[in-house]
Amino acid sequence: MPDHRPVPSAATDLPVLRDPAGLPALPPIAEPGQPWQAIDTPALVLELDAFERNLQRMQQAADRAGVALRPHAKAHKCPDIALAQMTRGAVGICCQKVSEALPFLRAGVADVHISNEIAGPAKATLLARMARHARISVCVDAVVQVRALAEAAEREQSGLTVLVELDIGQGRCGVADADAALRLAERIAAQPRLSFGGLQAYHGGIQHVRDHAARREAAARAAERAGAVAARLAAAGAPCQVVTGGGSGSVEFDLASGVFTEIQPGSYVFMDGDYGSNARGDDGAAEALRFEHSLFIATTVMSTAAQGQVVVDAGLKSMAVDSGLPWVWERNGGQRNGVDHNSGERSGGERSGGQRNGGTRSTRLAYVAANDEHGIVRPVPGAGGEVPALPQLGEPLWLVPGHCDPTLNLYDTLVGVRDGKVESLWPISARGLSR
Amino acid sequence: MPDHRPVPSAATDLPVLRDPAGLPALPPIAEPGQPWQAIDTPALVLELDAFERNLQRMQQAADRAGVALRPHAKAHKCPDIALAQMTRGAVGICCQKVSEALPFLRAGVADVHISNEIAGPAKATLLARMARHARISVCVDAVVQVRALAEAAEREQSGLTVLVELDIGQGRCGVADADAALRLAERIAAQPRLSFGGLQAYHGGIQHVRDHAARREAAARAAERAGAVAARLAAAGAPCQVVTGGGSGSVEFDLASGVFTEIQPGSYVFMDGDYGSNARGDDGAAEALRFEHSLFIATTVMSTAAQGQVVVDAGLKSMAVDSGLPWVWERNGGQRNGVDHNSGERSGGERSGGQRNGGTRSTRLAYVAANDEHGIVRPVPGAGGEVPALPQLGEPLWLVPGHCDPTLNLYDTLVGVRDGKVESLWPISARGLSR
Repeated sequence: MPDHRPVPSAATDLPVLRDPAGLPALPPIAEPGQPWQAIDTPALVLELDAFERNLQRMQQAADRAGVALRPHAKAHKCPDIALAQMTRGAVGICCQKVSEALPFLRAGVADVHISNEIAGPAKATLLARMARHARISVCVDAVVQVRALAEAAEREQSGLTVLVELDIGQGRCGVADADAALRLAERIAAQPRLSFGGLQAYHGGIQHVRDHAARREAAARAAERAGAVAARLAAAGAPCQVVTGGGSGSVEFDLASGVFTEIQPGSYVFMDGDYGSNARGDDGAAEALRFEHSLFIATTVMSTAAQGQVVVDAGLKSMAVDSGLPWVWERNGGQRNGVDHNSGERSGGERSGGQRNGGTRSTRLAYVAANDEHGIVRPVPGAGGEVPALPQLGEPLWLVPGHCDPTLNLYDTLVGVRDGKVESLWPISARGLSR
Repeated sequence: MPDHRPVPSAATDLPVLRDPAGLPALPPIAEPGQPWQAIDTPALVLELDAFERNLQRMQQAADRAGVALRPHAKAHKCPDIALAQMTRGAVGICCQKVSEALPFLRAGVADVHISNEIAGPAKATLLARMARHARISVCVDAVVQVRALAEAAEREQSGLTVLVELDIGQGRCGVADADAALRLAERIAAQPRLSFGGLQAYHGGIQHVRDHAARREAAARAAERAGAVAARLAAAGAPCQVVTGGGSGSVEFDLASGVFTEIQPGSYVFMDGDYGSNARGDDGAAEALRFEHSLFIATTVMSTAAQGQVVVDAGLKSMAVDSGLPWVWERNGGQRNGVDHNSGERSGGERSGGQRNGGTRSTRLAYVAANDEHGIVRPVPGAGGEVPALPQLGEPLWLVPGHCDPTLNLYDTLVGVRDGKVESLWPISARGLSR
C-alpha cells in the first residue's frame, strides 16, 4: 500500500500537506435531474409543487381581500423566492435587518421594508445608501432613531419612508399608544428627507396560539388596537398610507380585519413544525389558506450500532431547535425508497400534518434528541404495542424542522425537488446577514 | 427632496432598481485598530488574551500528562485557530464531518481525524481523495462502513487509518463491547489500503455533569471501559496505537486515566454558558485547567420603548439556544463604556463566571428571551430589591453564548479583540460544512 503518512517538515516538525495544489473541492450537494435519494446530506430541500401552491394561496387570499402582500424575506433569505413572490403579485418584501436587504436589492427587488428599528450610524448610513437605488422603508419607536435616519438620508442625499412601530401586545418593540405614535409621526414629517409612511403593528405571540378561536380573538384585539391608533393619527392630520403587520398564523384574521393595508407573512412559504401544530379553522377561508409543508431537512442514517434507535447525520448544526425537535416525514404517504412502511394513517386530523402531495408526519418514527452533528431517531410503538421497523444504515430520511427561519439561516443552498427529482439549487444569499 | 419612489417598469409593473451598478457593498464588520465599541453588531468576538491562555493551559496539561492533544475543530471551524493550536503542540485536529475538514487542509493542516462514522459513497470518496494529501483517520461501528472505506481508498489509490468507535455509555454511536470491536479491527486490518488505528471512546454526556465529583466518577467508569477493551484488543493481537476521546468537561480526568493516548477537547478554547456552569475542583490540576470565557456575542440595544426591559439586536439567528440563553457579560469587572455599573461582585463562586482579565457574568442584567433577530434583556433586582439601571438605546452589550459550537456555525467572521481594540478578523471557513 502507498505511504499515507504526512511528510514531516524539518523546520517545524509539523506534518505538511503533500501536493496542496491538488486538494479536492467540495462536490455540489446535488445535480439537477438526480433523484431525491442522491442529494448529499444534510441538505435543505424545498418541494417545489407544495411551495408554489403556498405562494399562490397567499397571493390569492390577499388579492381577494384587497390587501397588499409584502412577504417577509427573513423566513427564506433567498432572492429566487422573493422574485417568485413578486412575480405573483407581492408589492415588495420585508427584511428584518439592513444587511439582509442587500442580496435582494442585488437580485433586483426594488421595494424593501425593514420591519424593525435600527441602532447605530453605520446601519443608518447603509440604509440611506440603499435608498438611492430602491424604495426603502424602516420602523422607529424613539425620537433618536428619527434623527439618525434624517442625518443619514441627508448625508447620502436620499429619502426614506419611516413607519412608526406600535406595540399591539407583544411587549417587544414599538410605542405604547396613539399619543406617542403621533409625536413620532410629526417628528418624521418635519424632516425634509423622511416621509411618514404609517404604522407597523405586529404581534409575534399570536402566530403560535394553537387554538383557532383563541388565535382569532387575540388577532382581533390586536387589530382593533392598531385600527384605533390609525384612526387617531388620521384625525390628527397624520393619515397612515400603510398599516402593515400580520404573520402566517394570523393572516386569515388580519386580511378580514379591515385595518391592515398590507400583510407581511413569511413562514407560509414553508410551514414548519411549530406552525404545523396550529389548529386550523374549518371554514372556506381556512381551507383557502391551508399551507403545506414544503421545507425538509434531508438526512441519512449513519449509525445503527445501538439497539432500538438509529443515528442520523443532521443535528444542531443542521436545524434550529428553539421551537422543538423536527418531525420525521413520510414522503408520498409513507412510500420511502419504494417500500411502503406506513399504514397510510395521517396524523393530526385538522392540523397540517397531512399534505396534498401525499406526504405526512410519521407516526412510526420520532426524532428524539439532537447533538451537534447527530440526531437520534427512535420507533414509536403503535396502539397495539407493536414496534415499527427502523430504517437501515445509509437510508435517507426527511425531517420537518421545528422553526423554519433560523433553520434556513444555517444553509447556503436550497435544493428544489419536483416529482422526486432535483430541479433547482437556489443560493440562500442572505444567510448570516443579521447586521 | 429627491424622488425616492421606485421607477415603475412598463413591462411588469414591478418596481425596478435605479442604477443597480452602484449598489453599496456590506461594509466590514470592524477594522483592525478600532475600539471594541465600534464593532458592528451582532458580531462574534474573541478576547485574544483569554483565548491564548486557554490554548496554553490545555497544551501544557497534555504535555505534562504525556498525552497527545488533538483539539476538536467542530467547536471553532476556524483554520486560524487550528494553526494556533498546532503551533503550540497539537498533533492535528478532529473534524466531525468530512466536508468540514476541507478548509483546514487548504490552510495546511495535514493530520485530520474524522471523529465520526460516515454514510454514503460520496463522503467516502471525498475522504479517500483527501487522504492523498494528508494523514486522514475516521471511525467505524459497522462492517459495511469498513467495506465502503476500503473501496473508496482503492478507487482513489490512497490509504486511510480507521479507528473503531466504542460506546462507553453515551448510547449514540460505537460498538458495544470488545468482541464487536475486535471483529471490526480484524476486518480493517484485512484491507490492504486501511490500517487499524485504535479506539475512539467519547462520552458527550459526561462533559456537562455539573458536580465535580460526579463528573470524575463518570469519567473514570467510561475510561475503565475503554481501557478494558483496549487491553482485550492488544491481547488478541490488535493493539491500539491510539485511544482517543475526552472533551473539555472531562479532560482533567482523561489525562490522568492512563487509558487515553490522545484527547480531543474543543470548547476549552472558548468556554460557553453550559461549560461555565460546571463546578470546578479545588486542587492544582483543576486550577491549571481553569479555562476562561473568550467568546462573546457583541450586541446593541435597539429599542427601549417598553418599560422594564431593553431589546438587543442579537436573537436566534445570532446564537444557539439549545443549551440555554446567553449570559450578559460585564467587561473588565463591570466597566462598560467607561461607566462602572457593577458592584464588582463575582457570580458563581467556584464556577467560571469570573475571569482573570476582569470580566464577569452580570448579576444585574439577564437575557430572558430570544426571537429571530431580537433579544429581551431585563434587570435582575438585587438582594435588597433594588432594580439596576438598564443600558441605553444604542449601547453595546456582550453576551456569553449558551453553546459555543452551533453559535460559531452562524457566523462568517470571528473578530479578535485585545486590550479593548480590534486586532484580527478570522474567517470561520468551515461554517455550514456539515456534509
